[in-house]
Formats: sequence, C-alpha cells, structure tokens
Amino acid sequence: MFEIRSRPDPVVWADDDKTGPFSRQELEFYRTNGYIKVEGLFDVDEIQTYCEKLTTGKDELEEDIKSNKEEFISTDNYTCVTEPGSTKIRSIYSPHKFLPAANQLCRDRRLLGRVRQILDSDVYMHHTRLNCKQQFKGTGFYWHSDFETWHTEDGMPRPRCLTCMVLMTRNLPQNGALMVIPGSHRHYISCAGPTPDNHWISSLQDRYIGIPNQEALSQMVKEGGIHYCTGEAGSVFFFDCNLLHGSQANFSPWDRMNFFLVYNSVDNKLVPPFGPPKPRPETLGTRDPAWVQPITPLEKPTDE
Amino acid sequence: MFEIRSRPDPVVWADDDKTGPFSRQELEFYRTNGYIKVEGLFDVDEIQTYCEKLTTGKDELEEDIKSNKEEFISTDNYTCVTEPGSTKIRSIYSPHKFLPAANQLCRDRRLLGRVRQILDSDVYMHHTRLNCKQQFKGTGFYWHSDFETWHTEDGMPRPRCLTCMVLMTRNLPQNGALMVIPGSHRHYISCAGPTPDNHWISSLQDRYIGIPNQEALSQMVKEGGIHYCTGEAGSVFFFDCNLLHGSQANFSPWDRMNFFLVYNSVDNKLVPPFGPPKPRPETLGTRDPAWVQPITPLEKPTDE
Repeated sequence: MFEIRSRPDPVVWADDDKTGPFSRQELEFYRTNGYIKVEGLFDVDEIQTYCEKLTTGKDELEEDIKSNKEEFISTDNYTCVTEPGSTKIRSIYSPHKFLPAANQLCRDRRLLGRVRQILDSDVYMHHTRLNCKQQFKGTGFYWHSDFETWHTEDGMPRPRCLTCMVLMTRNLPQNGALMVIPGSHRHYISCAGPTPDNHWISSLQDRYIGIPNQEALSQMVKEGGIHYCTGEAGSVFFFDCNLLHGSQANFSPWDRMNFFLVYNSVDNKLVPPFGPPKPRPETLGTRDPAWVQPITPLEKPTDE
Repeated sequence: MFEIRSRPDPVVWADDDKTGPFSRQELEFYRTNGYIKVEGLFDVDEIQTYCEKLTTGKDELEEDIKSNKEEFISTDNYTCVTEPGSTKIRSIYSPHKFLPAANQLCRDRRLLGRVRQILDSDVYMHHTRLNCKQQFKGTGFYWHSDFETWHTEDGMPRPRCLTCMVLMTRNLPQNGALMVIPGSHRHYISCAGPTPDNHWISSLQDRYIGIPNQEALSQMVKEGGIHYCTGEAGSVFFFDCNLLHGSQANFSPWDRMNFFLVYNSVDNKLVPPFGPPKPRPETLGTRDPAWVQPITPLEKPTDE
C-alpha cells in the first residue's frame, strides 16, 4: 500500500519579486522540475584544484580502511562507507568538518547566493558528502527521496532544504550520472512500515526500506520522465530535498566524483526524529550548536 | 596478468566486391566498429506481434518457475535463468526450439541476407536467447566478449559468428540498453586462470570468471569509447561475436526486451571445448545434427 499526496510546502521559498543570482525563469524551472543545472559555475582550473584536494583526503581515508580492514568508519568528524564487499570508498560524510577545501566550498558565494535565494533565509550544513563512484567498481543506488530519510530518521521538520551537487569529474550515463524524476518533488509518497533501529548503517550501502514502490515510481516517471544529470566538472546541480533520484553502476574507466552540499534553512532545524527513537549520527545530520550556525560567505572572486 | 593480441581472423568474411543488403560503407563501419544498427528493419506492427508472442511464451515459463519455486530450469529444449533471488526471468535460451514466432524470426530474409553477407557462408543457430530486463528489477551484466565463452566453453573454433539483437521494446540508457566498446572486437584479451566445472550455471546470472581486467578494458575504451545501442522496437543491431559489451541495470518502469539470434557459419561448427572437459548444454551451444543445418529463409515479404 502507498499513498501519493501533494506537497503543501513551497519549493522556492522567496517571493517572485525578490531578485538574486537566479532569474525568474530559472526559479520557475526549479519550482516545476525540482532541479536546475548551472553550467561551468566553477572554472576548469578551480574545480581541478578542489578535486585534487578532496581526492587526497579520500585516498588517506582509504589507506586507513585498508589497514584497519573495516568496511565502515564512523567518528565524531566523519562517516565513511565503502562499496559492498570492498575497501573502495563509496561515500564520505561531512568532509567539511575536517577537510579545509570542503569547508571552503560550503562558503562559496556562488553556491550560497543561489541557495539563500531559493530557501529565502540563512542556511547551515545539514551534512556534506563526497560520493566516489569509482571506475568499474562503483555500484548504483535505487530511487529515493532524501527528505523521506531526513524527516523520518533525522527529524527535519519541513522540506526547506536543498542539495548542491558539484561535479568534480565529468558525469555521463556510462559512469553512473545521477538520474532524477522531474516534478516528483511536488509529491509525498508515503512508504509503509516502521524504520528499524540503526537502519542508517545498511541504508548507506544499499537501501531496502523507505523506498517508493513500483506503482508510485511508474506514475511519477509517466508524468516527468527520467533525466540524467550529466555535465562537465565544475557544473553544479541544485536540487530539492524531496526530488526522487537514483543512479546506475559505473561501468566505465572514468571515476565519477561528486560533492554534495546539503543546505538547510536555519528556520528548519532538526527536532527529534519522526520515525525511530534515536537520530542518525552527527555526521549525517548536524545538531551540534557549533555547526548549526548561519554560514558566512567567503570573500572571494565571484560571478555575482 | 593479461595480454592483448590482434585478431588474425576477418570480421567481414566476404570480399569487398561481393554485393548484398549492406552497402560497402556499412560493411566498412561494421569491420571497424564491430557492430552496425539497421533502424526500423521490422515495422511497428510486425515487431509488436512478435513481442506479444514471445512475451506470452515468457509469461508461461515464469508461471512454471513460480509454481516450481526454482531459479533455474534447464531442459532439452530450453534453459531459463531468473534474476538473482527472484522468480523474474532474465533470459530464456533457445526459444526458437519451442516457440514458432522465435523460429520464424531466425529464418527472416532481412536478417539472414545480412548475416550471410558478413559471414560469407550458410549459417545455423548457435543459440537464440530472449533477454528480459524487466522494469525496476532487471540487473546489469558486466563487460565480456561472447566469443571468449563460446570458444573456451563451447568449442567454437573461430570468430566466424555474429549476433542479431532485435529490439522488441525501446532501448535507452535508463532501461539498461546494451553498451559496446567499438573496435574491441579486433583484439583478443586473454584472461588468466582455468574455467571451473559447470561455470556456465553461475555465469548466466552474473559472471565472475573470464572477464577482461580493468587495465585491458581501460585501453579498449580509450581507443573506442563506450556506445549505447539505443533505438526503437523493430531496429536491429548486428554485432561481432568478439565485441566487448555489457549493460547497466534497468532503473525505469519500461521493460527492455531484446531477442538475440546467434548465427554461426556452417564452416565453423563446434569441436570439443578448449577449456573445461565438458561443453555447455545443447540449449546454449547446439551440436545436435538436426539443428546444425543451414537455415533456409522464409518466403515472406522482404526489403531486399
């Protein structure tokens, strides 16, 4: 059993007459489709530097994993997940807490300006994550809405939250580019059943619970199709927290690395989770007052 | 360790001045890339009828599997493989031996004329297979060359063999269209290690042995890229038995059904396998003299 309901909350929280980096047409596209691409937001050299720094951070963690022979590391500062049955890193959560380059990206004016325009408030990082879909080994991830998890397991009250996906490498269907179902963010699909304790551990490698059923997915796809978020390194996709997305495996010799920056409105701070009694770790959904602070933009060259 | 060697055998076996349905340019494309697409070889109504008949056959077998609770059925007439951990059919081998529609397709002049032109001889069916990559459930298949298996496990002497992939539904990246590495058919990649007994049983669900390593794959992709064999129902891809191919999972609500017709030259009949002592079953590589007979074309409307 499932139920599809219309979303009562706005997608673009600012009034139409409020100006900002996005044009009125761009905001309308985002409102309708739940995502928007900004091509070449970072130039080639700049993104290359970021990519190298993040890769170095990832490689160091990978060495730790190899020597500890663990598939999973969770500390106060980060959570690190490998591909099933492998020491290859799939995701690093909250690298902005220990990697200066990741922290710097969060404070970039070109991202922040656009995010604040859509959410119409100050913002803080719910989390960041580096998704490394490595050549040949990177597996897919089934359809899901992030807000489903962030609401149920993290206690995020409303969908006043969005993700900036910064492409660190070229993204193609062949290397498992993110797929989205345009328009799906305007619906809530209720999923049957309770959330098991510590569900988040297994859900980071592959998710089996809280996914929309096939009938609901078919209906969403019939309305909006399936769009590949392809592009060159340096392009950025802004997407709503309730947009259905997933991705196929990386079958290519080309690593696919994306950095996800999840900005939440300061007016939408976490409360106790709506599902399980205990929230997910700090690295997945920040509650630490030191980190739940409005992000201040860096004084850097900007296009605004 | 691996080794890449050049293919000593022809790709197009006929002389250039021998005419047929394919133009000289088309043959040159096939020789260089290892595949060629013929759009709309079957018209919409015709392919729809074939698709319905094959689907009916598949559905009946699926009912058998459900009632027998088996993941795998192999009889004298067919071999049927399900998706891992599911009763959904992934592949049916040799449907032409019991489904009249499948048999009729093998004898279609539009396929046969082109196949004979490339292989420059009479041909028989090495096998046929219906690949059903069903909506949401259909999993991917890693890179491989068919000839690697057909030579080692079936005892096919030379690569004088090709596959016609008839698209029964629309094929897109989203529903796991076949990917090929153009030009890879001109190389042999030797894979280390012996073939275990009865390897074919596990290899039909997912293959772990006899796959080219990442270094070899990277080199092939660097030269030829990765091409998706997309198209509408009724289009046909002809591809060389030694072309590297694979496919991602079906993430869409759209079934992806393709019928593979594997034609082998009558001058290239099977001998004892070059790897394991025992060949794979008759349904995967025909040896029965009754089936190793030149195929006669049906007297039907034709475009030739």
